[in-house]
Amino acid sequence: MELSNFQQIYESYLKENQFNGSPNNLYEPMNYIMGLGGKRIRPTLVLIGAHMTGVEIEKALPLAHAIEVFHNFTLLHDDIMDNADLRRGKETVHVKWDNPTAILAGDNMLILALEYLHSYQGPNKEVIIEIFLKTAREVCEGQQNDMDFGLRESVVSENEYLHMIEQKTAVLLGCSLQCGALTGGISLEESNDFYDLAINMGLSFQMMDDYLDSFGDSFKTGKLQGGDIKEGKNTWLKIKSFEIDPVISSEFFKISPEERINKVVKHWKQIQLDKLILEKAKMYQDKEYYLMNKIGSSGINCSILKNLSALLINRQY
Amino acid sequence: MELSNFQQIYESYLKENQFNGSPNNLYEPMNYIMGLGGKRIRPTLVLIGAHMTGVEIEKALPLAHAIEVFHNFTLLHDDIMDNADLRRGKETVHVKWDNPTAILAGDNMLILALEYLHSYQGPNKEVIIEIFLKTAREVCEGQQNDMDFGLRESVVSENEYLHMIEQKTAVLLGCSLQCGALTGGISLEESNDFYDLAINMGLSFQMMDDYLDSFGDSFKTGKLQGGDIKEGKNTWLKIKSFEIDPVISSEFFKISPEERINKVVKHWKQIQLDKLILEKAKMYQDKEYYLMNKIGSSGINCSILKNLSALLINRQY
Repeated sequence: MELSNFQQIYESYLKENQFNGSPNNLYEPMNYIMGLGGKRIRPTLVLIGAHMTGVEIEKALPLAHAIEVFHNFTLLHDDIMDNADLRRGKETVHVKWDNPTAILAGDNMLILALEYLHSYQGPNKEVIIEIFLKTAREVCEGQQNDMDFGLRESVVSENEYLHMIEQKTAVLLGCSLQCGALTGGISLEESNDFYDLAINMGLSFQMMDDYLDSFGDSFKTGKLQGGDIKEGKNTWLKIKSFEIDPVISSEFFKISPEERINKVVKHWKQIQLDKLILEKAKMYQDKEYYLMNKIGSSGINCSILKNLSALLINRQY
Repeated sequence: MELSNFQQIYESYLKENQFNGSPNNLYEPMNYIMGLGGKRIRPTLVLIGAHMTGVEIEKALPLAHAIEVFHNFTLLHDDIMDNADLRRGKETVHVKWDNPTAILAGDNMLILALEYLHSYQGPNKEVIIEIFLKTAREVCEGQQNDMDFGLRESVVSENEYLHMIEQKTAVLLGCSLQCGALTGGISLEESNDFYDLAINMGLSFQMMDDYLDSFGDSFKTGKLQGGDIKEGKNTWLKIKSFEIDPVISSEFFKISPEERINKVVKHWKQIQLDKLILEKAKMYQDKEYYLMNKIGSSGINCSILKNLSALLINRQY
C-alpha cells in the first residue's frame, strides 16, 4: 500500500457517500464544501493508523469520514467568522448561499459527523468517541484563541501561538491517527504515541505553511507571496521577529499592507528567520522520527508515515 | 414529587455545573444564554421519564443537562439566523458579543452536549445517543424548512407546516421524555409511547402558542398581541385562513404590518379560527391521554405528566 492508495480509497468512499437528506437547501451546501477537494490528510491518517495496527481499512472508513466531515464543518464556520470569500479558489458557502444557510449546514455536518462516528463497529469505540469529542472542543477553543489574538493589543508570545496552532490544527491530526490505530485494538497508552506523532506532524506542517507563505515560490504555492504579512496575521515568523527586534518589526507593520510585503520578507531573511523556521520544522520532524522508532520497536511498520512526513516537510506548495 | 420539584432539581444542577473552560471569551456567552432562564421543559421531561420508570432522578441529570444545552445551542444559532435582538427580554448573544463569537459558542455547546450525553452511565446508553443524534438532525432540518417557508412564494400547506413544527419543536420534547424513560431500562418499543406522547404535547403546546399570540391577553403573555401577524409569520392560523378564504386573507396581509393586526384578529374570530385552533390543541391532548392510559396499563404512574399536559394547555402565557 502506498500513500496515494489511502487517499484514493477515501475519495471513492466519499463519492459513494454523498449526503442525500431533505430539505435540499440544507444538504446541497454540505455536499458542495465536501466536494471542494483538498489533500484529505485527516481521513488518510485514520486509514494509515488502521492499516498499521492490522485492520482492514474498510472498517475504519466511517471513522475517516466522520473526521473529514467534522473538519469541513470547521472550515465552513471559520469562513463565516473570518469573512472569507474564497476556499480552494471557489466561493465559500456563506457567499454562494448566505450566512443562515452556512451556519445551519455546518451544524448539521457536526451532527452527521457524530452519527458516522457512532456507526463505527469495532474495538475501542467508547475511547474513540471520547477522544473525538475532546478534540472537537479543543478545535473550538483554538479558533477562539486565534480570534482573540487577532484583536489583542499586547504581543502574542511564541508559546501562546504554538498552543493555539496545536489546538486549531494539530490535535485533529493527532486524533485522526490515534483513532485509526485504536481500531486495531491496541491499548490507549500505546495509541498515545500515534497521537503525539501526528501532533508533531501538524506542527511541522504549520511551520512549513508559514515558511512557504513568506519564502515560497508563489508560482508553485498558487498563493500571493507574503499573504500573511499583508493581512498582518500572527504567524510564528511575525511573533519571532517581534521577539528579536520589536522596534524595527513594529515599524514595518505600520507600512501599508501591499508595500510592506517585500520589505518584511527581506528583513526576515537578513535576521535569518527563513533558516530558523526550517530548523523549527526539522525539530518537530525529529520528534516524529523518535516516535516512529518507538512505535516500530513493537513490530509495527512505520514506512508509510515516514513517506508522509518527508512529503509534508519537503513540499513546495 | 410534584412538577416544580423536577424543575428545581435541574435548576440547582445547572447552577452547580456552569461551564468553566478557557478561553473565557468562548465560555462566557455559553453561560450567559444558559442563564437566561426559561421553563426548562426539556430537562424536566427527561427527569419525569426517569422517575416514571423507577430511576433515581440524579442518574438522569447528565442527560437532562445534555438536552438543555443542545436546546440552548439551537436558540443561540437560530437568533443569528433570524436576526433576533432579544431573547427573554435580554440581548441575544450575537448582539451582546458578535456573530463569530455566537457561532463558535453555539458549536462548542453542541459538542459539550454530546460530552454530557456520553457521561451518562446506565441502561440503553447506545440507543439514547442514537435517538438524540437523529433528533438533533431533524431539528436542523426543521429550521431549514422554516427558513425555506419564509422565502417561498407558493402557499405552505397545513401538513407541511405541521411537519416543520414537529421537527423544529416536538421531536426534541419526544426525545427528552423517551430518553428519560429509557434510563429505567425499558425496551425501545415501550419507550416509543413516551416519545409519541411528548410529540403530541409539543404540537398542542405549539397550537396554544399560536392561539395566545393572536387571541391571548398581552398583559398576561407579556408579548404584543398579534406579533406573529405583524411579522407575517407562517402559523397554523395564517395557513388555515388562507385555506378557508384565500382572497380575503391575502388582502389582509397586504396591509401594513402595524395596521393589519386588529383587522386580521377580528376576521379570524369571525371565521371561528380561535375555536378551531383550540379544538386542534384539544385533539392532540386527547392523543396524549390515550397514550397515558396505554403507558399506565403497564403499571406506570402518569399523574405528573397529566398535570404537565393540563398546565400546558390551560396556560394563559
